[in-house]
Amino acid sequence: MKRIMIDKLNEYIDKEAKIEGWVHRIRCLKAITFLILRDRTGLVQCVIDNELVKSDMIKLESVVAITGNVKESNNKLNKFEIEVNNLETINNCKNELPIEINKENLNINLDTMLNNRVLSLRHEKINAIFKVQNLIVSGFREYLIMEGFTEIFTPKLVAEGAEGGTEVFEVKYFENKAYLAQSPQFYKQMMVAAGFERVFEMGHVYRAEQHDTNRHLNEYISMDLELGFINNQEDIMNLEEELLKFIIDKVENEAQKYLQLLNVELPKIEDTIPRIKLNEAIDILRKEYNKTDLEGDLDPEAEKLICEYAKEKLGSDFIFLTHYPRAKRPMYTMPCGEEETHSFDLLFRGIEITTGGQRIHDYNMLINNIKYKGLDPNDYESYTEIFKYGVPKHGGLAIGLERIVSKILGLENVREATLITRDRTRLIP
Amino acid sequence: MKRIMIDKLNEYIDKEAKIEGWVHRIRCLKAITFLILRDRTGLVQCVIDNELVKSDMIKLESVVAITGNVKESNNKLNKFEIEVNNLETINNCKNELPIEINKENLNINLDTMLNNRVLSLRHEKINAIFKVQNLIVSGFREYLIMEGFTEIFTPKLVAEGAEGGTEVFEVKYFENKAYLAQSPQFYKQMMVAAGFERVFEMGHVYRAEQHDTNRHLNEYISMDLELGFINNQEDIMNLEEELLKFIIDKVENEAQKYLQLLNVELPKIEDTIPRIKLNEAIDILRKEYNKTDLEGDLDPEAEKLICEYAKEKLGSDFIFLTHYPRAKRPMYTMPCGEEETHSFDLLFRGIEITTGGQRIHDYNMLINNIKYKGLDPNDYESYTEIFKYGVPKHGGLAIGLERIVSKILGLENVREATLITRDRTRLIP
Repeated sequence: MKRIMIDKLNEYIDKEAKIEGWVHRIRCLKAITFLILRDRTGLVQCVIDNELVKSDMIKLESVVAITGNVKESNNKLNKFEIEVNNLETINNCKNELPIEINKENLNINLDTMLNNRVLSLRHEKINAIFKVQNLIVSGFREYLIMEGFTEIFTPKLVAEGAEGGTEVFEVKYFENKAYLAQSPQFYKQMMVAAGFERVFEMGHVYRAEQHDTNRHLNEYISMDLELGFINNQEDIMNLEEELLKFIIDKVENEAQKYLQLLNVELPKIEDTIPRIKLNEAIDILRKEYNKTDLEGDLDPEAEKLICEYAKEKLGSDFIFLTHYPRAKRPMYTMPCGEEETHSFDLLFRGIEITTGGQRIHDYNMLINNIKYKGLDPNDYESYTEIFKYGVPKHGGLAIGLERIVSKILGLENVREATLITRDRTRLIP
Repeated sequence: MKRIMIDKLNEYIDKEAKIEGWVHRIRCLKAITFLILRDRTGLVQCVIDNELVKSDMIKLESVVAITGNVKESNNKLNKFEIEVNNLETINNCKNELPIEINKENLNINLDTMLNNRVLSLRHEKINAIFKVQNLIVSGFREYLIMEGFTEIFTPKLVAEGAEGGTEVFEVKYFENKAYLAQSPQFYKQMMVAAGFERVFEMGHVYRAEQHDTNRHLNEYISMDLELGFINNQEDIMNLEEELLKFIIDKVENEAQKYLQLLNVELPKIEDTIPRIKLNEAIDILRKEYNKTDLEGDLDPEAEKLICEYAKEKLGSDFIFLTHYPRAKRPMYTMPCGEEETHSFDLLFRGIEITTGGQRIHDYNMLINNIKYKGLDPNDYESYTEIFKYGVPKHGGLAIGLERIVSKILGLENVREATLITRDRTRLIP
């Protein structure tokens, strides 16, 4: 008999059907037992005659196959239930459960959640996080493919750090040393120059940062894009606005079930996202919030405050900060005058979720800027070389997947938006 | 003025339009110059009055913006051409080109192609490879999402090698050692067990293999899937048949332009792909091809021969070989009797493009099989632990992206299907 998914059982009223899944809950009465079965599409109540099945042998979270008649019913879960004819155990749960999966809320701390990841993910509210994540990821790809972008896969094993930073993981690569890529920056620029013009990549990036905060991971998913034939960073910000609107609409349309479960209100983008220069933001923070210790960048507290300002004064969940100083931006960033750059960050609900901007496309300017940053152009030759052969004006951005997911869903820690976390102390599972 | 893409110029006949791209070819006559411009959508002939622009200053592969009138014309490229009113150089090509991008075929060796990757990718026949790759990747995702799969992103930094092999890259992870994942095997099984039931991942995998062949890479893209509530490996093979049909149809429908350019005939799957046991295949090779040196597996020559056999005798570009011996399969493979396993390989045009099969879902059987393979169960505790808590019968497969792309397109070396190659000697660019 073919397995029927629980969310299709309404098509089998008064018929026999076979369902398979995990034993979510058991309530044993004198003559009958109520068993709630869970599959990837939902929950269903099954009624078992105690003379038919020794229900005291059934353990929570065992995998079972149930055949029975689908009957109309008024229970909390559905307008139907299953009168069980046969119950077969496929794989018994052998141990006591370390967490209670069938409670409305898990109410466990983060460590317990991550240490028991396969079990905590079985909880519908935890599982739902990744259903929404899937829609965000699909939305990102769909919009960009529609806009003529090509998806690229570029190496994560590199000979040198893209940003010239020191926080890289070292890899033994045969007789050489390699490093894990901190971003696909150089490669996405190369692929614009290789004639694809518009490229995106969704892949792992690595940061060997020591810190242990609720917003950093040592391995995370970066949603990167880069495009040529732009005028300046404004084109990139325009693109991101439309991209985010598309993603939010997609989540709104396809994730209602999960949004209700998680009690989430989606952010809205009315027309455009406010854009202010970083310097103005620093002025605002000084004048309105008495935040006087900022120099050329925001700290986490300032990011929260400027988002409060955006929400209260500008009516926006998002805010673009632009024109970061040359001193704070990587060597490939297009300068804007002597001090500033054609760059931006996008902040959302208290945190930076995107860094982007226009890049240098002129070979001589790039070499000079590498020197200006105190770096040696010879270290970047395989990258700078391409700028001798006709590179269009271009720019791009990167969105941290776990950050945008956790901020959209109101999660406290980016780790909650990772299936399996990699941080300072977690290499297992 | 807004940029118009070359493939939309037919909508601008007798109007002025602005195009931007690379200078693909220049032919200077006495009074006029013919310039072929290339953007990501195609090529167009532009006619320049030599009194207007000093065309001897224009270099091949420079990036330019051209404004002009779109006129009907009978040239080799299109039914229109551009009468140039203005030509502006955005970024000049500064060096002599090391390869000739505007020839019908590049005719360069593989090293030259990979060493000049940004330039070789500008050639339309090279570029087309990755347009087809994009459709294969999209097809894989679309089909699986339609079938209820969840996309997952799992760590590439792991504490131990998934396959128990030695060919792993070692990473310095703070004060610990980590390794680059050889496959997402353990994690995709965990995510099936975590209630997603059906998962896929498209990501980098790493093999520290020393060999330098035309079919191995040290970093490549694995298209992985895993699903629960199956009966046995037959279900996985059925799924792969439908998946491949979907992908081939998608490429057929959306990549005609690239297939013609590359002179490619797509494989056909009539109904089902032939399935024969590995032992039978070895018998056939011995009897029909006098290949007598095989023991429990095929070598590259045998893979070619059995594919010849499948094509000639069974009329199929694909062939499934099943029931590989326990001795040759990893410890998580479901045994089938004492000697064999519920496993398969899929061979296509002379090469293995998929390994798959049913996995062990029972805790005790798994522990015993780990021991049978001469491994220590303690080394796999974070993996085996999950099997105590109700794991459904499950299985899956992995398709090597570069292999399937190169075999579909008739490329001689998998490196041609990588944007940037990572092999024994290539860490740059």
